Formats: sequence, C-alpha cells, structure tokens
Amino acid sequence: MQFELTEEYLDSFIQAVDARKNSWIREQLDELHPQDISSVVHELDSVHSKYVIKLLENETGAQVIRELDSEYRKRLLKEFNPDEIAAYISFIDSDDAVDIINELPVKTKEEVISLVDNKEKADHIRDLIHYDEDCAGGLMAKELIRANLNWSVTQCIEEIRRQSRNVSRIHSVYVVDNLDKLLGIVSLKKMLLADDNTLIADIYEPEIIAVETFISAEEVSQIMEKYDLEAIPVVNVHGKLLGRITIDDIVDVIKERAEQDIQMMAGISGPAEDDDSVWTLSKVRLPWLIIGMSGGMLGAKFIGLFEKDISMIPAMAFFIPLITATGGNVGIQTSSVVVQSLAKESGYGSFNFASFLKVLIVALINGIALSSLVFGLNMILGEDTKLAIIVSTALMSVVLLATVMGTITPLVLDKLGYNPALAAGPFITTANDLLGLAIYFLVAQSLYHL
Amino acid sequence: MQFELTEEYLDSFIQAVDARKNSWIREQLDELHPQDISSVVHELDSVHSKYVIKLLENETGAQVIRELDSEYRKRLLKEFNPDEIAAYISFIDSDDAVDIINELPVKTKEEVISLVDNKEKADHIRDLIHYDEDCAGGLMAKELIRANLNWSVTQCIEEIRRQSRNVSRIHSVYVVDNLDKLLGIVSLKKMLLADDNTLIADIYEPEIIAVETFISAEEVSQIMEKYDLEAIPVVNVHGKLLGRITIDDIVDVIKERAEQDIQMMAGISGPAEDDDSVWTLSKVRLPWLIIGMSGGMLGAKFIGLFEKDISMIPAMAFFIPLITATGGNVGIQTSSVVVQSLAKESGYGSFNFASFLKVLIVALINGIALSSLVFGLNMILGEDTKLAIIVSTALMSVVLLATVMGTITPLVLDKLGYNPALAAGPFITTANDLLGLAIYFLVAQSLYHL
Repeated sequence: MQFELTEEYLDSFIQAVDARKNSWIREQLDELHPQDISSVVHELDSVHSKYVIKLLENETGAQVIRELDSEYRKRLLKEFNPDEIAAYISFIDSDDAVDIINELPVKTKEEVISLVDNKEKADHIRDLIHYDEDCAGGLMAKELIRANLNWSVTQCIEEIRRQSRNVSRIHSVYVVDNLDKLLGIVSLKKMLLADDNTLIADIYEPEIIAVETFISAEEVSQIMEKYDLEAIPVVNVHGKLLGRITIDDIVDVIKERAEQDIQMMAGISGPAEDDDSVWTLSKVRLPWLIIGMSGGMLGAKFIGLFEKDISMIPAMAFFIPLITATGGNVGIQTSSVVVQSLAKESGYGSFNFASFLKVLIVALINGIALSSLVFGLNMILGEDTKLAIIVSTALMSVVLLATVMGTITPLVLDKLGYNPALAAGPFITTANDLLGLAIYFLVAQSLYHL
Repeated sequence: MQFELTEEYLDSFIQAVDARKNSWIREQLDELHPQDISSVVHELDSVHSKYVIKLLENETGAQVIRELDSEYRKRLLKEFNPDEIAAYISFIDSDDAVDIINELPVKTKEEVISLVDNKEKADHIRDLIHYDEDCAGGLMAKELIRANLNWSVTQCIEEIRRQSRNVSRIHSVYVVDNLDKLLGIVSLKKMLLADDNTLIADIYEPEIIAVETFISAEEVSQIMEKYDLEAIPVVNVHGKLLGRITIDDIVDVIKERAEQDIQMMAGISGPAEDDDSVWTLSKVRLPWLIIGMSGGMLGAKFIGLFEKDISMIPAMAFFIPLITATGGNVGIQTSSVVVQSLAKESGYGSFNFASFLKVLIVALINGIALSSLVFGLNMILGEDTKLAIIVSTALMSVVLLATVMGTITPLVLDKLGYNPALAAGPFITTANDLLGLAIYFLVAQSLYHL
C-alpha cells in the first residue's frame, strides 16, 4: 500500500530519464502520490528533476514542487523560467506559494508574482508576502470559505461549490457580517444535517477562537494544541477575517522548534542540514567549539596557579576530569528540565521558591550519593584519605553549584527574551568546567593546608 | 478573547469553593472552555477539584477530566467512585477513554468498564484496551462514520445524523463493503456538493492510505505528516476497518518524541515532570551521573599511570579540561546531527560513505582551526613550545576521533534498535573524556621522549 523508494527503482528511473522513455516514466508516476514523486525527484539532479516534473500535469507538478524541501527546491527552480514557476504557483495554496516565492531571488520574485494569471491568487500572495514567517500572518493561507450571516444553507453550498476549486480542504465555513468581520463558524456536518432553507444565523457557533496576525507561531501552536483545533482563523485588529492556519503548518512549527532546541543543546549555531556545504557545516559548529576552547584555556591558566601543589601531589590532577564531567552532566540535566518546563508553562509562573527548593533537595540527594560512592571507591582503591575527602567534598559542592547554575541560567535567558535551550548547551558545560575546577582547587588548598 | 489564569483569579476561585458559593462558581465556569476549566482545576487540590467538577454537567466534566494531565488525573480520580467515573467515560472518545481507564488501579478498571452504560462505548473500550499504546491500535478511536458502497448520499446523511452524537469531528466518511472491508473515503464536501440520490460508489475516492494496528506510533506519524493527513483509518490484516487516528493524537506523539530525545541528550533516564516526587527526580538522574562518575574514576586511574610525568611537568595537567571538553563538545555536535538525520530519514539509506567523508572533512577543518588557535594562544601566553605542540596535536586527534565516535555510535544504536538519541547524551561525553585523555597522554609521552 505504501511506496518505498529503493536504490534499484531509482536506478531504473534514472536510466529511463536518460533514455527519454516518457511513456514508461508517465506510467510509473501515474501510480504514485505527489509526495512519493517528490521523494523520487529529490534524489535526481536538477536537470533530471525538471525533465520529470515537466512530464506531469501542472497541478500534479505543483504539488510535487510544494513537497520538496526548501534547499532542494531553491536549486531546482533555477532551472525553470518565471513563466513556468508562475504556472505552478497558481495551483498552490497561498501560504505555501508565498514560502516558495520567498526562496526565489528578489528579481525573479516580482516577475513570478506578476505572471500568476489567477488574479485572486496573485492578490493573496501580495497580501501575505509582507508578513514575518514566524507570526500568524506568515502562517495563514487566504483560501477559506466565508459565508454571510444572512445566507441560507443553500446559498452557502453554492459558495462552497464556487470556491471548491481553490480551497482543497474544508471542515468549516467561517461566518462573517457585511463588513467581513468574523462572527463564528459552522461545520460542514451541521450544514449537511440542516434543512436547505435554514439560515446560517440559526446554526452557526458564535464562540470561536481566532488569532491576530502578529501573534507568534509559537503561541498559535500552543492555542491550537490547547483547544484541539484543526484550523484557526486569523483576523486583523478590527476583527476582520483575513485567513486561516491549518494544523499541518503547526506540526511543522512544533518540529522545527524541537529541532532548534536540540541543536542549541548540541552547540550548533543555526540550522544545518546534511546537504549543506562543508563550509556551512564547519561554520555553524566552530563558534561553540571556540567558546569551549576558550573555557579550556582559561581553565589551563587557572590550574597553572596551582602548579606547585600539583608537582608535589600529582594525584590532584587525576580527578580533574571526574569533577568537570560531573559538573557538566548535572548542569545539563538540570537546565534541560527547566527548559522543558518553561516550554510547557501553562498559565501563571510555574517556577517559584518551592520548586527551586525541590531542585536543591534532588541535587543534595544525588550529591550525597555520588560523593559517598566516590569516597568508598577511593578508599577501596587505596587512595590517600585526605585526597579522597577533598574529591568528595569538591564533588558535592560541584553538584550543588551546577544545579543552581543550571536552574538560573535558562530562567534568566528566558526573561531576557533568549531561547532558554541555549543554556542547556555547551555554555553550561563550559561554565561548569571552570566552576568545578575552581571549587576543586580551592577545597584542595584549604584542606591540604589544614 | 483568550482566558488567562492569574493568581488573583485562582485565589478568589478557591475562596468561593471554600464558601460553597455554587452559583458564583457556575457563572464563572459557564464562560470558560473546558480546556480552561482544566487549567483552573489543575491548580486545586483533589478535593476542591472534585467539588468543582461535580458542579458541571457530566458532558463538560468529562471534557475537563480528559484535558487534565495524566499524573494529576490519577490523583483526582481516586476521589471518585467507579460509578461516577463510568458516567464521565460515556462522554469521552474511546481512544482517550482507554487512556484514562488504563491509569486506574486494575480492580477499579474492570469495575468502571462494566459500569459504562453506553453498550457500544463499553465494547469499544474492551476492543482497544489490549493494544500497546505505542502502536496504531493503541492510538485509534473506534468512533467514525462508515458508509456502505451501495448507499446513496441520503442514506449516508441519515447515518451521519444517527452517529453524530457519538462522533464529534467528521471530515470524511469511510466507505466499506458488506464485510466491512475498507474501500475508500468520501469527503463531506463531496457529499454536500452531490445530488441526494447519487450513490456513494460514484463519488468515493478509492485511493486511500490506511495503517494496520501493529504499525508503530512513530511510523503512523511519519505517514500522516508525509501525506498531510488529518485522519488515517486503521485496518486489520484482512483490511477490515477498525478505527481511525486523528492528527491531534499525532501532535502528542511528535512532542513526546522530541521530549524524550532531549531527555536522553540531557542524561535523564525516563520521563520526569516537575511535580514528580524528589525520589523519582533523583532516581532518573542518578544512573547517568554514576556512569559519568565511573568514567571519571577510570580517567583518574588512567592519568595515575602518568604520575611521574605530571610531577616532572605539572603543566601537562593544565590542559586536561581543554582536551576533555573539546572531545565532549565535538562528540555531541556530531552525534546530534546524525540523530536528527536518522529521524528525518526518508526513503533509502541516507547515510553512506560519501556523507561520512564529508563529516570527516568538516572535522578536519574545525580541528585545524581549533589547534591553530590554541597553538597561537599558547605561544602568545609563553607556554613551552613542545607542550604547545603536544596540546595542539592531541586536540586535532581528539576532534577527529570524537567525530568518528559521534557518527558511528548513533548509527550502531539505531541498527540495534535503540533510540539513537541515547548517543548524544552523557554516554558520548564520558567515552570522549576517556578517549581524549588517552590520546593526550599518549601523544605527550611519545613527543616528550623524542
């Protein structure tokens, strides 16, 4: 039932393209969903891709282009002239159309829009192109069915018939007044069950959740999730209906957000895909590595202050990795929990003194467990008792301090308007390395000189 | 338009509950969505919560209970007797009903099911309760509209009317034959636009994507995303229609998956919520801390082998944190990219020799950049040239080796059927700490003795 792209399939496909076996190719493509055609096309170079897409009806070709990932599409569309691109754009919903047009070079962009011959679509695109892509305005599509409050069900069905070429998926009809102000919603189910002469005014649901254009994508996704919505209407400040956002766009927002958090935690600045160039891939990694390196150099200078102690008691150096690693691990554990609870924050301030106390108690329990274990191990291994005490004391302090740092950093970043996930990455590790070293050597100095 | 829960609101609400001001409370609740009532109730203790929920109609109460998070609900439902729980369950879709029932103690579970007086619902629940929650069977709801191929649109509308009390959201009607085998789908839009006497057979869409019950939640979410589906039918091995999965359940799957990955990366074993007990929170963190600690102890033993060298050249100890931190950072960067590309893997094997080579080149560039920087810095800071060479050589080797480890580990884990995100966590850090130390001291020994 499901299509699976194998290497053999791809090979025979490429051969067919090279041999210009158009009828064989068309036969193959006829059996596939546009999404599957996309995944085949994605494995071809731009010239082959173009050849295949040109064999399809424009409507199917448009769907294939829409499904491609944006990096690949950018390269592919260089092979098409503005006329051809405009022809595909006519078949794509305005929200996706704008995304695709925004990937084009500025000059081509203007030209493509002017060449879209569906006037309504071109207007939609001009309306949408100015919104930032991270807000409700940038996510919405203009295609929707609106019905006047005073219409009958029959009139409304007439409107759906008229619009059905443009609006692919309809769950509900948005109800507006004569000034296009959003008043409510009526589901297709209700219309189907109602008598033809019933007025929309009698069956519509006046309680409706809508968002204004400037609401952030993040917030839109929270609202849609909370209220289990499959689509949400977008209005301007006067309540005028402008467009709608559907759940599939929100799924993308959620996934992107999760990916960003993971990249931040992994210390990768900016989006990186496998197929980016070697330079891009190096560039997004280097900043954090340099920060980590600077931390390491600072650490080296710091340990240098204790050169005499180390040459006398070299065993002090043995436990440096233990202390820094534990600080790093505790810091990341703590901060990632705080980051996740910030992301889920519902209603009012969920992080207060009580939760901070709880975090500290957890740290205390883990700290005691770890230090006792390490102390026991050191005794079994015949380490010097004084050194064992120093290591365990330092470990305990590091666990507590790394917990405090790991809790406070994301909260502060969040308050300052940065992504708190930043704090769960190399930043915390580097800071905790230094913190751990400081604690370790200070504890060592004070205990050795007792 | 949107409800915001403030501390003041909550205070006055609690006071009203204490004073048993039922009419005031009802007035307040009347204005809220069930989801908002849930967020109010969530801040109350179980006894207050129960009091508030009992003031609501059973149907609204059921929605409020459904929206609560599972930990809170578990505690709350202890306050209700099986009769009361069964009354709410009647109003909840079978998929969510099963989730709630599964949270109950085994004894209560059986009792509640036997007390559900809607016989169809009880049967649905009995059908669903045996499926694992991570597969299509465990995600599906039994509530859907099915139409026989030979019905007319009018007959189908009759069926929708009959079922509309049970099925809250309808986008499409599933078309089956006399043996209940799934044949296709017909959208409400098409039915609305068709003539009443049209046969379903003439307007239905025979190409339909369905999943079998044993397909994993992960895979279901990939299919629904790929084909932009808002609902997907679930069938048994004979193609018989059993239920449907809606996109809101998939959003949960995606979010949970992202959370799990982040927890794995942060070295937290198992789900942990802020409101878990101190013991649970400690327990999920300790395993990785102990692994990290063991790595640290091993490292200490390893460095111990070079005790004589360190007492002669204590400066060797200074750069331990630099080496281990860089290994850790590079390892996590690399592995998290591999983990993400595994998660997105579409079609056939996307990771091959060419991509491995690319990863190595990136590592080489970053390695050269870092080692040169560190060498330069060490020269400026007046460090011994030989030591500077050792540190930079070790750094370069660590970057390369950590890259190889960070690439291979998630691939191996994935092949073995484990979550590859495991590799982006403390596991990689610990391994790279040891690897880094080994490289550093081996390089040092061989270069010093030249």
